[in-house]
Amino acid sequence: MSLSSVVSLPLLPTPRDGGGSDHSFVAGDPGGNVVRRSVLPGGVRVLTEAMPGQRSATIGFWVGVGSRDEAEGQHGSTHFLEHLLFKGTARRSAMDIASAFDEVGGESNAATAKENTCYYARVLDSDLPMAIDVIADMVTSAVLDAEELEQERDVILEEIAMDSDDPGDVAHEKFVELVLGDHPLGRPIGGTPEAIMAVPRDSVLAHYRRYYVPSEIVVTAAGGLDHDVVCRLVQEALETAGWSLDEGALPVARRSTTATPVRGATGTHVIRRAVEQSNILIGCPSLTATDERRFAMSVLNAVLGGGMSSRLFQEIREKRGLVYSTYSFSAAYADAGYFGMYAGCSPAKTGQVIRLLGAELDRLAVDGIDAEELRKAVGQLSGGLVMALEDSSSRMSRLGRSELVSGEFVDMDASLERIRAVTAEDVRDLARELAAAPRTTVVVGPFDTEADFAEHEG
Amino acid sequence: MSLSSVVSLPLLPTPRDGGGSDHSFVAGDPGGNVVRRSVLPGGVRVLTEAMPGQRSATIGFWVGVGSRDEAEGQHGSTHFLEHLLFKGTARRSAMDIASAFDEVGGESNAATAKENTCYYARVLDSDLPMAIDVIADMVTSAVLDAEELEQERDVILEEIAMDSDDPGDVAHEKFVELVLGDHPLGRPIGGTPEAIMAVPRDSVLAHYRRYYVPSEIVVTAAGGLDHDVVCRLVQEALETAGWSLDEGALPVARRSTTATPVRGATGTHVIRRAVEQSNILIGCPSLTATDERRFAMSVLNAVLGGGMSSRLFQEIREKRGLVYSTYSFSAAYADAGYFGMYAGCSPAKTGQVIRLLGAELDRLAVDGIDAEELRKAVGQLSGGLVMALEDSSSRMSRLGRSELVSGEFVDMDASLERIRAVTAEDVRDLARELAAAPRTTVVVGPFDTEADFAEHEG
Repeated sequence: MSLSSVVSLPLLPTPRDGGGSDHSFVAGDPGGNVVRRSVLPGGVRVLTEAMPGQRSATIGFWVGVGSRDEAEGQHGSTHFLEHLLFKGTARRSAMDIASAFDEVGGESNAATAKENTCYYARVLDSDLPMAIDVIADMVTSAVLDAEELEQERDVILEEIAMDSDDPGDVAHEKFVELVLGDHPLGRPIGGTPEAIMAVPRDSVLAHYRRYYVPSEIVVTAAGGLDHDVVCRLVQEALETAGWSLDEGALPVARRSTTATPVRGATGTHVIRRAVEQSNILIGCPSLTATDERRFAMSVLNAVLGGGMSSRLFQEIREKRGLVYSTYSFSAAYADAGYFGMYAGCSPAKTGQVIRLLGAELDRLAVDGIDAEELRKAVGQLSGGLVMALEDSSSRMSRLGRSELVSGEFVDMDASLERIRAVTAEDVRDLARELAAAPRTTVVVGPFDTEADFAEHEG
Repeated sequence: MSLSSVVSLPLLPTPRDGGGSDHSFVAGDPGGNVVRRSVLPGGVRVLTEAMPGQRSATIGFWVGVGSRDEAEGQHGSTHFLEHLLFKGTARRSAMDIASAFDEVGGESNAATAKENTCYYARVLDSDLPMAIDVIADMVTSAVLDAEELEQERDVILEEIAMDSDDPGDVAHEKFVELVLGDHPLGRPIGGTPEAIMAVPRDSVLAHYRRYYVPSEIVVTAAGGLDHDVVCRLVQEALETAGWSLDEGALPVARRSTTATPVRGATGTHVIRRAVEQSNILIGCPSLTATDERRFAMSVLNAVLGGGMSSRLFQEIREKRGLVYSTYSFSAAYADAGYFGMYAGCSPAKTGQVIRLLGAELDRLAVDGIDAEELRKAVGQLSGGLVMALEDSSSRMSRLGRSELVSGEFVDMDASLERIRAVTAEDVRDLARELAAAPRTTVVVGPFDTEADFAEHEG
């Protein structure tokens, strides 16, 4: 039931044509796990990764629609719809849905993102058939009751109010909006309170009918499971719902990955809040999700702001004691993406910290990184990748993202190889591009204008 | 580097005398894992749980000192010290420590709690010797350099400022302070900004010398590991540091588990913040960590506020759409504990939501729970326990808490048995006690006094 923003991960599928394939493939990784992919009648894709020895499994039903797909007057509908799927189906009340997962100690939730929506659950392997049945029921047979919808409108307004009381969330949301300008990816996922108050049931219903169809659905699962059993259970659940599952129907084509020119608002933007810390974000548009340089971006982020040994942490926190938290990040979508640096500091140090963040990016562009930094960053990304994949939720997500974004799964060895192939020159070239781009700066703090903190030199 | 608050978990060791034992024990659980415990020379305890098939391991060095142990004028020293351990040792700079974990993709951090401090890392199994060496070096040989200390003072003030910009954190901290009154457990872990600005290096140093000694140290690890190897590596690391490790030295005795009478401040307390949501907490003192009724408390929390099917979620969110988030919780320490209910709602609904929270607790006390609710809660706790233990970090934490709190490890089967033994009467009796206790209510919202929201009836 949450708003999701995805930052770049060292999960590195290579692009190919993702639509129209009905073959299965099998890929292995050094952990002994096997990935299998099948296309069911109707074009429903199922990807699984059996993890021997796991007693639990994580399953996700992905729908290839996100906030970027909303038409004018529908903003917030994707997230609204996601909430409503928990409010009851032809066969189940909201309480039935909640109880099904609670009574087995499972975790179930959903996340609406800019390019997809995912309903997921982690349960003991013996409860996987239940999880598939319940989530398939929600995805295929939600009632979208008019009275429940009005009730849920208030809940969503509370969710938005909660996020707007978090100065870090406010800064991130505003940052993305400004950096991506009028690109549909720039809009807040949840919609504005005004949009949520206005959205009519018809537009939520239209959204549901248009996108919750077999060819848009990707089911991914990882953990203690059997691929053929998962495929059979998914197909049975969709048949029970009365979905028409034509043999030979094809999955929808992937989104276009041609980069869209982005025209954002540069310069410094201030949002006044009565807070004790300034929340600062500085960045610019950057790579798409299939850009070959995304591996170099992962290395760049590791060196610049990816851990306690990173340059931002060392320069701004360790040497100067100006912040508790500082890092860099990037997010990549089909046709656009962005890069940013964050710091939270005392209001009086705002001007100084903004200059330090900018200076570190400039230094990276001028001096590049040395062999030792490259070696450490590759070690960091490689070790992190191997550890993340011990968790069935991470594997479930990786399967979903690789299918939806690139159409091809790349196993761990191939991913590690791509990370290891990054050179110091690749990173410096990318840093030069980022440093040369006009910057967008967002400050959420006790200020009315930039002049209020520009004077407070550290 | 964080402030930790621990809420009750379904991890249920039985009490016994924890000091003075130098034998090893072995316990198994249905997952095929084996727990082993050894006491090394000097009284250092080592508990491990080998998890066959895991490629990573989590290791924690626990010190049996927390914010409750701080004398007047030392408030915040425990957390301050925790930060300083990352700033350098005789053999390593701050950058060396940070790099050691970053370059292998490991996650390392520390958490200061009210009754203990834990330094931990999750790394690939092949990096476990490195992790033990680095953390042992930090625990035994920190320099506590005077200049670094001044720098870190600012970082900690930023951490406190960040937390104070989170209205939920502010409400929780104030709630605990009021419920536990002048009990040392009531104090905020990080200290106040005034205390942090004032704390002298001598008191941090005294704290380090007094508590960072062999008999206070508990090392716990879980994942891909071998118990004997972990014991050998820990012992070698402590010897390298020059710690005196007397054969036959005993671990310190556990804290007294005799309940301390708590005299908190009841009634309603308002903290004004310019926020869009009221953050409400209502509760009272409750069970200690070794109270036999803690199993009933887990069931009570599951039924009242433990998931989407819980009474609070159903009554306040699903039926009335008044909140996005609501739940109940409890926290238990050696000689005191507390119970609470949380909700975040629109300021205009504050009075109504306070009444609804109280009414649900009262209803639980009057009507108790039915057999179906009991069955579901037991299923929820059991499934959650099994799933949590797939993660090496959870197992590492469980070993540490069971050793420090009760002195005995209880395997999963025994834990499940204790949960299943809870009756509906146990839960109703506990609910009666909680409902009869004078309540403390904290509201963080756009109000000056209780009268401001008491008028806004829903």
